[in-house]
Amino acid sequence: MRKLSVNELQRKSREEFVLAEKNKIIVVLENIRSAYNVGSVFRTADAFLLNSIYICGYTAYPPHKEIKKTALGADETVNWKRFDTAKHAIEVLSSDGYKIFAIEQAENSIALNKFEFFHQSHKKVALIFGNEVTGVEQSTIEYCDGCIEIPQMGIKHSLNVSVAAGIVMWEIVRTRIGVD
Amino acid sequence: MRKLSVNELQRKSREEFVLAEKNKIIVVLENIRSAYNVGSVFRTADAFLLNSIYICGYTAYPPHKEIKKTALGADETVNWKRFDTAKHAIEVLSSDGYKIFAIEQAENSIALNKFEFFHQSHKKVALIFGNEVTGVEQSTIEYCDGCIEIPQMGIKHSLNVSVAAGIVMWEIVRTRIGVD
Repeated sequence: MRKLSVNELQRKSREEFVLAEKNKIIVVLENIRSAYNVGSVFRTADAFLLNSIYICGYTAYPPHKEIKKTALGADETVNWKRFDTAKHAIEVLSSDGYKIFAIEQAENSIALNKFEFFHQSHKKVALIFGNEVTGVEQSTIEYCDGCIEIPQMGIKHSLNVSVAAGIVMWEIVRTRIGVD
Repeated sequence: MRKLSVNELQRKSREEFVLAEKNKIIVVLENIRSAYNVGSVFRTADAFLLNSIYICGYTAYPPHKEIKKTALGADETVNWKRFDTAKHAIEVLSSDGYKIFAIEQAENSIALNKFEFFHQSHKKVALIFGNEVTGVEQSTIEYCDGCIEIPQMGIKHSLNVSVAAGIVMWEIVRTRIGVD
């Protein structure tokens, strides 16, 4: 099995990326401490052709040296907007017809493997990821349509936020590959 | 929706983790440059109750300050072994009945969303992740049973290795939740 060269990967040019129809998925980052994590989310959002990243609270935003280091250019292509608070971002998302889910371990949270991303009412989905230590703010969760939880079976309480974001983005995109 | 406290998460104790039956999934790390990425893989491997991590080539291994920083303790619980080369790790895995797949973009690689992890012959699966820049070595791929590729639709050529590992681990574990 011969590895493909970079030229054979048939990735989009910047121009093609701008014009491409994006997946109707928006990632909301609330008070993320590490700019490296933000950059990593940009890189994954590029790969999965997300609509946008909404950057809230004290989360770092481009242009930023540490974001650039892990985004590797995706910080210049993926759409993003900045909001002072996640609450404000949620108001805008709601008025744009997005259903909003916090990725959080909460009462009545839905396991990721049981969430019906393909459901008609989930065509436009926003996913809120919170601070590395404290998670999504309780006050933010109150404005969401629900919580999604990644099942975890070990001793640790959570995943790295950029890994968690990658897993949830993949889980949605997976259900939409080859579907219009 | 009330966030759960750490005590409500019902995670395993170290003793319970040691005794728990693990998923028959082994992650093989070949020449990973960043010890932070290694630590992050440990953290995810804990969450998804992986059998082991096989650490090959010049990849850093515990005890290691940078691994500890991102593993957050998972480096002390997840099983791991060290091998000089991925080829040696593959020989051991093959004799233990594991099917071995490189996560790589190659001719005839199988898209992650089409891979039949639930297939009878894939009960024991090893996943090889390669260097952040150069990927899995071509010479290592020759010893694998196949390549699995994460579909990517943006301008960048690859995902961060710890994000890619999280996505593939989740994709397997997802198919096994609630299944014996």
